[in-house]
Amino acid sequence: EMLRRVLCTVLFVGALPSLADVSQGHISVVLLGATGDLAKKYLWQGLFQLYMDQVSSGHSFTFHGAALTAEEPGQRLMFDVLKKLACPPDESPNRCAVLKDQFLKLSQYHQLKTAENYTALNREIETLLRQEGLKEAGRIFYFSVPPFAYTEIARHINSSCRPPPGAWLRVVLEKPFGHDLESAQQLAAELTGFFREEEMYRVDHYLGKQAVAHILPFRDQNREFLDPIWNQHHVERVEIVLKETVDAKGRTSFYEQYGVIRDVLQNHLTEALMFLTMELPANISRADEVLQCKLRAFQSLRGLQKNSAVLGQYQAYASQVQEELQKARDYISTTPTFAGVLIHSDSLRWEGVPFLLTSGKALDERVGYVRVLFKNRAYCTQSETLRDAGHSQCKAKQIIFYIGHGVLNTPAVLVSRNLFRPVMPEGSWREAVGQPDLHIFGQPLSDYYVYMPVKERDAYSVLISSIYHGRKDFFITTENLLASWGFWTPLLDSTSHQPLRLYPGGVENQHLLDFEMVSGEVAFTLAEQVELLNPNRLMPSDYRTIQSKFRHSPLVSAWSEDLISQLASDIEKTAIRTVARSGRFHLALSGGSSPVVLFQRLARHHYAFPWRHTHIWMVDERCVPLTDTESNFFSLHNHLLQSVRVPYFNVHPMPVHLNQRLCVEEDRGTELYTKEIVALVANTSFDLVLLGVGTDGHTASLFPHSENGLEGAQAVVLTESPIKPHQRMSLSLPLINRAGQVFVLVLGKGKHDITTLLSRVGHEPRKWPVSGVSPSSGQLVWYVDYEALLG
Amino acid sequence: EMLRRVLCTVLFVGALPSLADVSQGHISVVLLGATGDLAKKYLWQGLFQLYMDQVSSGHSFTFHGAALTAEEPGQRLMFDVLKKLACPPDESPNRCAVLKDQFLKLSQYHQLKTAENYTALNREIETLLRQEGLKEAGRIFYFSVPPFAYTEIARHINSSCRPPPGAWLRVVLEKPFGHDLESAQQLAAELTGFFREEEMYRVDHYLGKQAVAHILPFRDQNREFLDPIWNQHHVERVEIVLKETVDAKGRTSFYEQYGVIRDVLQNHLTEALMFLTMELPANISRADEVLQCKLRAFQSLRGLQKNSAVLGQYQAYASQVQEELQKARDYISTTPTFAGVLIHSDSLRWEGVPFLLTSGKALDERVGYVRVLFKNRAYCTQSETLRDAGHSQCKAKQIIFYIGHGVLNTPAVLVSRNLFRPVMPEGSWREAVGQPDLHIFGQPLSDYYVYMPVKERDAYSVLISSIYHGRKDFFITTENLLASWGFWTPLLDSTSHQPLRLYPGGVENQHLLDFEMVSGEVAFTLAEQVELLNPNRLMPSDYRTIQSKFRHSPLVSAWSEDLISQLASDIEKTAIRTVARSGRFHLALSGGSSPVVLFQRLARHHYAFPWRHTHIWMVDERCVPLTDTESNFFSLHNHLLQSVRVPYFNVHPMPVHLNQRLCVEEDRGTELYTKEIVALVANTSFDLVLLGVGTDGHTASLFPHSENGLEGAQAVVLTESPIKPHQRMSLSLPLINRAGQVFVLVLGKGKHDITTLLSRVGHEPRKWPVSGVSPSSGQLVWYVDYEALLG
Repeated sequence: EMLRRVLCTVLFVGALPSLADVSQGHISVVLLGATGDLAKKYLWQGLFQLYMDQVSSGHSFTFHGAALTAEEPGQRLMFDVLKKLACPPDESPNRCAVLKDQFLKLSQYHQLKTAENYTALNREIETLLRQEGLKEAGRIFYFSVPPFAYTEIARHINSSCRPPPGAWLRVVLEKPFGHDLESAQQLAAELTGFFREEEMYRVDHYLGKQAVAHILPFRDQNREFLDPIWNQHHVERVEIVLKETVDAKGRTSFYEQYGVIRDVLQNHLTEALMFLTMELPANISRADEVLQCKLRAFQSLRGLQKNSAVLGQYQAYASQVQEELQKARDYISTTPTFAGVLIHSDSLRWEGVPFLLTSGKALDERVGYVRVLFKNRAYCTQSETLRDAGHSQCKAKQIIFYIGHGVLNTPAVLVSRNLFRPVMPEGSWREAVGQPDLHIFGQPLSDYYVYMPVKERDAYSVLISSIYHGRKDFFITTENLLASWGFWTPLLDSTSHQPLRLYPGGVENQHLLDFEMVSGEVAFTLAEQVELLNPNRLMPSDYRTIQSKFRHSPLVSAWSEDLISQLASDIEKTAIRTVARSGRFHLALSGGSSPVVLFQRLARHHYAFPWRHTHIWMVDERCVPLTDTESNFFSLHNHLLQSVRVPYFNVHPMPVHLNQRLCVEEDRGTELYTKEIVALVANTSFDLVLLGVGTDGHTASLFPHSENGLEGAQAVVLTESPIKPHQRMSLSLPLINRAGQVFVLVLGKGKHDITTLLSRVGHEPRKWPVSGVSPSSGQLVWYVDYEALLG
Repeated sequence: EMLRRVLCTVLFVGALPSLADVSQGHISVVLLGATGDLAKKYLWQGLFQLYMDQVSSGHSFTFHGAALTAEEPGQRLMFDVLKKLACPPDESPNRCAVLKDQFLKLSQYHQLKTAENYTALNREIETLLRQEGLKEAGRIFYFSVPPFAYTEIARHINSSCRPPPGAWLRVVLEKPFGHDLESAQQLAAELTGFFREEEMYRVDHYLGKQAVAHILPFRDQNREFLDPIWNQHHVERVEIVLKETVDAKGRTSFYEQYGVIRDVLQNHLTEALMFLTMELPANISRADEVLQCKLRAFQSLRGLQKNSAVLGQYQAYASQVQEELQKARDYISTTPTFAGVLIHSDSLRWEGVPFLLTSGKALDERVGYVRVLFKNRAYCTQSETLRDAGHSQCKAKQIIFYIGHGVLNTPAVLVSRNLFRPVMPEGSWREAVGQPDLHIFGQPLSDYYVYMPVKERDAYSVLISSIYHGRKDFFITTENLLASWGFWTPLLDSTSHQPLRLYPGGVENQHLLDFEMVSGEVAFTLAEQVELLNPNRLMPSDYRTIQSKFRHSPLVSAWSEDLISQLASDIEKTAIRTVARSGRFHLALSGGSSPVVLFQRLARHHYAFPWRHTHIWMVDERCVPLTDTESNFFSLHNHLLQSVRVPYFNVHPMPVHLNQRLCVEEDRGTELYTKEIVALVANTSFDLVLLGVGTDGHTASLFPHSENGLEGAQAVVLTESPIKPHQRMSLSLPLINRAGQVFVLVLGKGKHDITTLLSRVGHEPRKWPVSGVSPSSGQLVWYVDYEALLG
């Protein structure tokens, strides 16, 4: 057998480990897809590096290349690759030559196609170990194959190739791991049927990039400096960027299915994001602690919406797709090749800090970096021109994890000298000097402490070494993967038909791909010129808001987005006017879905709203606990209250939940709320009541033919809804009609019929409660969108 | 009479207004302090300018200089000044010469010393008007005299010099208007006894500076552009700066009493601040609307504390004071000549935006400006080096109201070209070009739209014209003045003995006066070197935190500041650990004064605190409404809850106020709270209870010999405090002792006796309730500061 010969050679050479040294046991590495691109380019080299590094570790190795190709041609193909393995510059040529020779001898090709092939492979390994009297330490199966083949291979390995008890199994998987949450879950579920979580090593080769891999250690080793500044109070923004100059030519069959978000953002850039935003575990070398912190960081991410991203496509892409995929001339691809995404974390640490993830093909330069820009908290009294050249606190403060390429053309860690001198592990990073004229991120290189790796290492050799060491923190666990897909899938869904900005590619792009943040959203800075317009898109701004009459009261009508803006602004004006007059503003709000957009708009756009002087009351409530997702108050809390500063004392949820019971008459919740209103609201006249209308003409929780609330002296009533949850608490019509202003909001096609009906009928509150809204001395305004008004 | 002759001359010259033209009536201007410095330098010139501008307005004028000097020498002194009046460059020399001649003839000197003098002045004015058959339009009295003379003069004017009904009186007052809130109130009260508010024109000559005067009109005319960006979401910081190169030499007798805050910040810079921060009234030319908005803006300012300011004194100041004021060699002045102050507004518009007010003498340059720096909201995809030179969105965005001097040496308004092209009134501001090499605030002048006044006007001539036009919005009303003193006085009080940083003066200062913002406070960037150290100041960091035992439980002791840091951090750690384990953290907090600092620290420094998963409970409460300032919850709300994001549902104030009654047994508040605890807190075991200790050994609201709460089954009890308010609600000792952790915080010398006592006594809860704190299965930790521990 080949291996016996090799082991003999090893023993013969003498300088190499003796059998006693290999008492740590034997490791079999099986590379599936041994003749593919990735294997050729990186994996074999990484395995050879592993062998060179670990030859004296006490482990013995064999390397098994595998593919679908038959034994003979496969072996030839594989050895053609192996013969070209390079010796690293820091290795003595003699030692390397000897080791390469051994590595070739320790390597063998196998056809792995049928179940029998796998059984045979397993038998060979067992036989070899028995013959050589070796203890088995473990087996590594590296899947460098397309994902559709995963399940089949996994099944075979699980059934035929598991090592005996006491030895470990590590299977290494290459992305893509699904293309959305559902497919990723499915793939994960299938794999989980064959492997235990700790056996799976999902590769994101970015975790092997030296600068990315050093983010957590950097944060850990520099806790003292970072603790006070690694938060929303000091960080202005974070940019995570991977720019490429190449385009997708020749790879469109892959790219057309994935696009830039799936290809780069969901995995590489997201992992970097997590390393930055996660709370630091006490022990960063414990993969389980790191994972828990990472998962919590995922939970804190604010959900992405359509306008969280700007997307582009380089102009030549369409024709490349048409050509390579044999599509028709008029085929339009909706696959983005450029994305800029704004991410927010709602953790207390990061609230409000923009994280900008950007990647694209056919850009002006090839570069990857993670840039943390700190706020300038200093004021420099001396005029700039009269200042010493020194490291003024008024200069920009940044920490940059430079992944590679670009002007530096090496991985690096840069820290502005006016921040701190970082602690860096001496063995692996060295301080770099020189190139004082080089400018990077707006500053001369001399403004930074610059560190570069002592030994630049390819990501795959880092990762293969980590697999060998069982360092799972360098890999993507199932939970991590699904959390990431869970985060990205809504954006992928909502932007799948979004217009893409076309860009010429290269430096020609100029400002075409610049984008700006406004109210938690992003948009391209330059107006649309060459953008693929979706012809179906309604342009609300093309239409003016209509002002007219409805049921003898003022009517404001517009497309819903404009209508909501107008309504929010009118509410704000009323609030300011009322607070100026009386010092307080009593606002009663309705539940339901229509007001949610209004709440969000009020929370994000109305900076002059006198929230500190505003009292929030409920128009109606469902008889569920306030923390139930069905609760009107819960929705109000989520979409408005938690974003603005209304004092606790000014918030008045309805007491539907008393003595652990819901809306029980004898708990007298309605009386309690009435008393609260009487005590605080002058004349029990709310300054503003916001109502909606149901398709049955109900308003507040006053339904047709209701026994309570349509008339009489009661201010707050219990009512019954025809739909669940049936029990409700509501302000009564007479109380509503005492208000200073009443705004009724009606949105959507679904409300067209009732709107039409209401435009014709008179005052018939028993049939259509909303027709009874008629403030005795206040003002009523209808806000009805075009869809409700015009159908 | 002289005036008759003048009027004859006027008629004779013919080109000047006829009597018909002067039908608008006659205006008498009385300048008190007519031969003083200010009059010499600015006021007479301003009055002459007024005459030139308004000679054809339909009003006739006489100008009365007045002082304490006798008639003859006074007249000579005054005419020496008048003869030197300059002709403005934009006036034809001929016209100016004629007008100057007339102005001299219309001017007269009066000695105003005794009551009789005032009566005589009044008689003269009346006689003149009668003789000339002139209707009286109004009288202006300009007080250019030291403030101690105000009351006396005001009394005389009020009693002897009021114009007849139908004509107006305007008295113009020059600062200082008091030196703190109390003295300003007193002065204001005295003046109010003599003049109506609308009669008083308090000068802040900064309001006459063209760039300052244009802030409000600029905001008004550019509403369209500014509305979306004039807020916390877009503004990064605002700098309001007045730097001087001169020092106080020759003026120390004035300066030593006032210092830079009273001299510059309380008035000039504060007015600029108000113009920036106030909400814009609908009509900015209505002084009453402007005033209301300004007063509201004052109300929104966050109170200043000692650490809101950094203060300095130029090194030569002390010897100048010693020399000029004949002080001893070892006299130490505590008057600041430099101040940097960080101001925050808590309005929704400005929350979180730092406003930096800086002024000082003996600095590197003379310059005044108001600089609004906007956040960079853009990401520029193209690398900087490959971008067009154009006005990229990634360049800094600023709006600068350049008051004067400095590199521009003229008033100006600058707007970054990547912001918008501002609307400027054409008649008074012109676009300036040229000087492309000039850099200002880090950018070439060509990056800005630059506007300069068509006609540069001295502040006093602007103000005198405004007095003539009755434009009160250019002056400081009493309310405005008191609001400003109300804002500044606490800082003046708290810093009156603060150490000052000494600086050499001029460009030598270098980075010595740079300062930085940290957690809403400011500090000099460079470590103390030449700072006057207060030898009594304790340096907490010189001492290590002591860890030991107290009453058989762990004791943490340190100086109070360090102790609070440690406690806050321990609470945070407990919270994180607990949430990781159970998903929730139930925290019960005590009232009283000690925890306030802790609350503030938790609010500002603990970014990883899991507030969203924290439930806040009260250990005890006073039987007052929750909105009463005596309420424990109110204090907790103010210092902690309103700064962090605890969901509404997780906040559990004690129900001391039910059915509009306070702690009435039959309202069953204690039962209600018990039920809430039982429903939410597993095993009724709080995760952490924070307690304090009273000098009588009470803890929570459990007082010595209390009938309730020291033992028994009740979880929540009503108790009686020996001090007001007597009625309390409190968790019981048995409930407290069920907690997972109990931290007891003891601060201050006042607690030394009880601390000593407690260190000796055993478990005697009836005598000293805190001695009964002994968690049955939880952990007790004592946090006692050195003052309480060591006395």
